Amino acid sequence: MINPFDDTYFMKKALQEAETAFEKGEIPVGAVIVIKDKIIARSHNLTELLNDVTAHAEMQAITSASNFLGGKYLKGCTLYVTLEPCQMCAGALYWSQISKVVYGASDDNRGFIKMGAQLHPKTKVVKGVLEDEASTLLKRFFIEKRNLN
Amino acid sequence: MINPFDDTYFMKKALQEAETAFEKGEIPVGAVIVIKDKIIARSHNLTELLNDVTAHAEMQAITSASNFLGGKYLKGCTLYVTLEPCQMCAGALYWSQISKVVYGASDDNRGFIKMGAQLHPKTKVVKGVLEDEASTLLKRFFIEKRNLN
Repeated sequence: MINPFDDTYFMKKALQEAETAFEKGEIPVGAVIVIKDKIIARSHNLTELLNDVTAHAEMQAITSASNFLGGKYLKGCTLYVTLEPCQMCAGALYWSQISKVVYGASDDNRGFIKMGAQLHPKTKVVKGVLEDEASTLLKRFFIEKRNLN
Repeated sequence: MINPFDDTYFMKKALQEAETAFEKGEIPVGAVIVIKDKIIARSHNLTELLNDVTAHAEMQAITSASNFLGGKYLKGCTLYVTLEPCQMCAGALYWSQISKVVYGASDDNRGFIKMGAQLHPKTKVVKGVLEDEASTLLKRFFIEKRNLN
């Protein structure tokens, strides 16, 4: 039997969140956290609206998922995020001991890999899921922003 | 003229926050953020109470200071924190472009230096201010916790 709930399915949900961020004038990054094929947190970048560098999609998703689960560890959970996490978000994911992180586009400038930060050794990582869609949205955002200035 | 508002003065305020965390059963880490000798944010670790790995003292202080200033960049600000920031907090401080970070005790296991994370190149770092007081409080916390279990 085909399982419709694969990584692409959930990354599409994260992309929908990124599109919502785009519409709000935020750098378009979206995230969902899933446990047993159920979405327990949805979020998108809100750094501009909240005037807060900590308001990345992943940070909000971690807080929401912890609230939902009633515990701070996200064992058994998967984060889907459209862009490679930065070192702040990788650090938060490290503490959460989340089981799996799936991201779309790589961030060769400020992604956690380039910056030297680490995920938890127990965390499985999958990258490049719907990478083109995620990076096209980001490029479109920066082109439109440049044209407005 | 002697300026009473030196690094030791503000680190004592951060230590008071760490003591409040201790009393709440939280790993005792405290922080304040200062601009022009004025404290604009005070916070302490609340990860247990909030069930949220992102609730480190520094993260809350960054959010509070941004709210106070009405902007997400903390240029001209100094963070005083009793323990070396982890990679998550270093990542948040990186994004904030904070001018100066002063910490007390080093964290040779999970501190940002050991983990490989980076502060912003513009951020000046001072370490070891009231280091003994900060590390004594942390050691006392873990000894008491061990004896309770």
